[in-house]
Amino acid sequence: MIHANTGRIQQHLEKLAEFTATPGEGTTRMSYSPQGQQARAYIKEQMQAVGLTITEDAIGNIFGKSAALEPELPSVMIGSHFDSVPNGGAFDGPAGVVMGLEVAALFHEHRLLPRYPLEVVALVEEEGSSFGRGLLASSAIVGKVSADELHRLRDDQGRSAAECMAQVGFNADDVANVVRTPESIKAFIELHIEQGPVLEQTGTDVGLVDVIVSITQLTVTFTGKAGHAGTTPMGSRHDALVAASQVITRVGDFARKAGEETVATVGKLQVFPNGANVIPSKVVFTVDIRSKSLDKLQQVVEQTKACIQLQAGEGITFSVEQPLMVEPTRLDEGIHEQLTKHSKSLGLSYRTMVSGAGHDAMMFAGITRVGLVFVPSKDGLSHHPDEWTDYAQIQKGVDVVFYTVKEITEAKAHDQ
Amino acid sequence: MIHANTGRIQQHLEKLAEFTATPGEGTTRMSYSPQGQQARAYIKEQMQAVGLTITEDAIGNIFGKSAALEPELPSVMIGSHFDSVPNGGAFDGPAGVVMGLEVAALFHEHRLLPRYPLEVVALVEEEGSSFGRGLLASSAIVGKVSADELHRLRDDQGRSAAECMAQVGFNADDVANVVRTPESIKAFIELHIEQGPVLEQTGTDVGLVDVIVSITQLTVTFTGKAGHAGTTPMGSRHDALVAASQVITRVGDFARKAGEETVATVGKLQVFPNGANVIPSKVVFTVDIRSKSLDKLQQVVEQTKACIQLQAGEGITFSVEQPLMVEPTRLDEGIHEQLTKHSKSLGLSYRTMVSGAGHDAMMFAGITRVGLVFVPSKDGLSHHPDEWTDYAQIQKGVDVVFYTVKEITEAKAHDQ
Repeated sequence: MIHANTGRIQQHLEKLAEFTATPGEGTTRMSYSPQGQQARAYIKEQMQAVGLTITEDAIGNIFGKSAALEPELPSVMIGSHFDSVPNGGAFDGPAGVVMGLEVAALFHEHRLLPRYPLEVVALVEEEGSSFGRGLLASSAIVGKVSADELHRLRDDQGRSAAECMAQVGFNADDVANVVRTPESIKAFIELHIEQGPVLEQTGTDVGLVDVIVSITQLTVTFTGKAGHAGTTPMGSRHDALVAASQVITRVGDFARKAGEETVATVGKLQVFPNGANVIPSKVVFTVDIRSKSLDKLQQVVEQTKACIQLQAGEGITFSVEQPLMVEPTRLDEGIHEQLTKHSKSLGLSYRTMVSGAGHDAMMFAGITRVGLVFVPSKDGLSHHPDEWTDYAQIQKGVDVVFYTVKEITEAKAHDQ
Repeated sequence: MIHANTGRIQQHLEKLAEFTATPGEGTTRMSYSPQGQQARAYIKEQMQAVGLTITEDAIGNIFGKSAALEPELPSVMIGSHFDSVPNGGAFDGPAGVVMGLEVAALFHEHRLLPRYPLEVVALVEEEGSSFGRGLLASSAIVGKVSADELHRLRDDQGRSAAECMAQVGFNADDVANVVRTPESIKAFIELHIEQGPVLEQTGTDVGLVDVIVSITQLTVTFTGKAGHAGTTPMGSRHDALVAASQVITRVGDFARKAGEETVATVGKLQVFPNGANVIPSKVVFTVDIRSKSLDKLQQVVEQTKACIQLQAGEGITFSVEQPLMVEPTRLDEGIHEQLTKHSKSLGLSYRTMVSGAGHDAMMFAGITRVGLVFVPSKDGLSHHPDEWTDYAQIQKGVDVVFYTVKEITEAKAHDQ
């Protein structure tokens, strides 16, 4: 049985963790920053060391392609992203990039020659931390990003994505050439940390994702009337925070009743004017709703809207916007079966899971067959300096991907 | 008959209204902000112009003292505060400061020499908007604030009150020297806008307050656990905002059931980390409770604490602080009689009133005889950009204070 090298996985992840703008306070690595460039150099060096042929596309995605028995056949692509949120962890993204490097290393080390080329990808701009646009690179690869958008998107300093790209030698105007055709990719497999508590709590080695949930976000504004907290009788109040609180206490119930792993979260809320002795005149909050089932998601949206409506009346008005709506993504059943089979033969515990977070895999599902493997997140934590997955747990995930990729690429031991 | 100068009152109030961090959106003037410093400079300039001798204490209260026949006698102090709530109005506080300036101007103009010194005061930090601590400056003057507290109190950016004071040249460590002895103040008279609808609705010129309600503020912190909004099942959540919302929906009911003009308000709330796709790990909010009856107030405090306790449990902890607790305050009967007498002789309509809002006068009542005069609030509105009192209405209130202060200071026309 071939197993991934835990020491090598550790070394890669520790090295990538050094490329942070906030040493001692987690990983802060924007795609086109000095830290992003340091990570890029390291990844390219490691791809080269395992015999991959490197190309970078116009927006900075890195591809390392193996030799193959039939090099003109479509690639089996594996990997993830190497950017981070501000003060995030060392695993969200890099765990999947390192999986790609390690699978290639195993091919190299064990002299496996695939019939279909193995292609390791290290993607930029998944988090949306720089330009407020998640899944930017994978969206570009499937043809959903225009040069116009890259000139329009701006970071907190007002620089456009195109400018940031140009500063490190990439060319947003050439984004059309980033697009990969369905004919060029046989399959895409990503490994990612779970970012939730399920695998750890159930003592499961790997999560094999079948569906990436449907996601929507509402932005709700309640407008009431400010007044002095001491001189406005209870009966004359139009308190926007009381209205908002009535909704916040209910959305969780809507999600629980919906089932189908539906979740609903009010994560961001602002009170105006926010004075201890002023009745709140305005409250703005987000409602993030996710579900395996599009019907259930829409049901919770409707229940939330009805609940909001109930709070309105004399003196209280509201508005609801829906800036984000993504339908569920069903991943490839065949790949899921192969991942299951190899988990079993490796003696690993596994479970079929829904992904509650969006991933680059979601975009690739638009053009090819896709698989997604989760490894456990300590305390379910992510987007945090304390994000952690034991290297031995990542190794198990890599093993599953390795055997699956070996099968899909039709790799054979190559005797010289 | 001497009358206050309406034009001068208008000029002062319009000028002070310019010192706001939110031009076009009401008055936002924190005590130690650039706007607070601009107002400070203006007030000092105007005190000087009417012959007052200026001192500032260690935390930034401004005192302007007149000449007197017997300068060593205790002062008759008049004034109010010049800080505001965020996006508040131009009258809450400044109307009383301008009253002080105008009474001093009348003394100056009419060459009145008081036997007891007239002392105009412009106080900082009444609203509690910066550090969640109402009546901070007047509490310090009556000896109820320690240097420790000033180091502990923090604003939304995490800066301590002491740090904010130091940045503009004041010294929290010297707060003990802010204390005024009962022997140094003969009486304190404040003028303030009513912040309620009674005077306007009854067509009354001035309100002469006999009792200020009991007031308390709680600062509640719920601590749960952050987690990804998409990957944390509903059953594994410890959402601090849901816990807070349960309490916020109830406190109004507790107040309504208590009667006795009891009110309860959650006006200020902050969510951490406040990301749309992160489960809130911490929420900090204030509960402001007021009542004519101390028993009813304490009843609502206990009900609120019990309700907070109910939300705690596995994964949710809480803390409750009570930074403010003031019993009902009965103002001085003798001064009330003098204010009544002068209102009558000025031909003004007047009424005896309870104050539902706390005022600096409340703290001074602990060390001296206190009077409080209300002028009408248009639409009962305050803590709002539309807060308004006609300048001619303020002038009537100033006239009442002027004649009362003239009597208490034993001022006489001073012939050279």
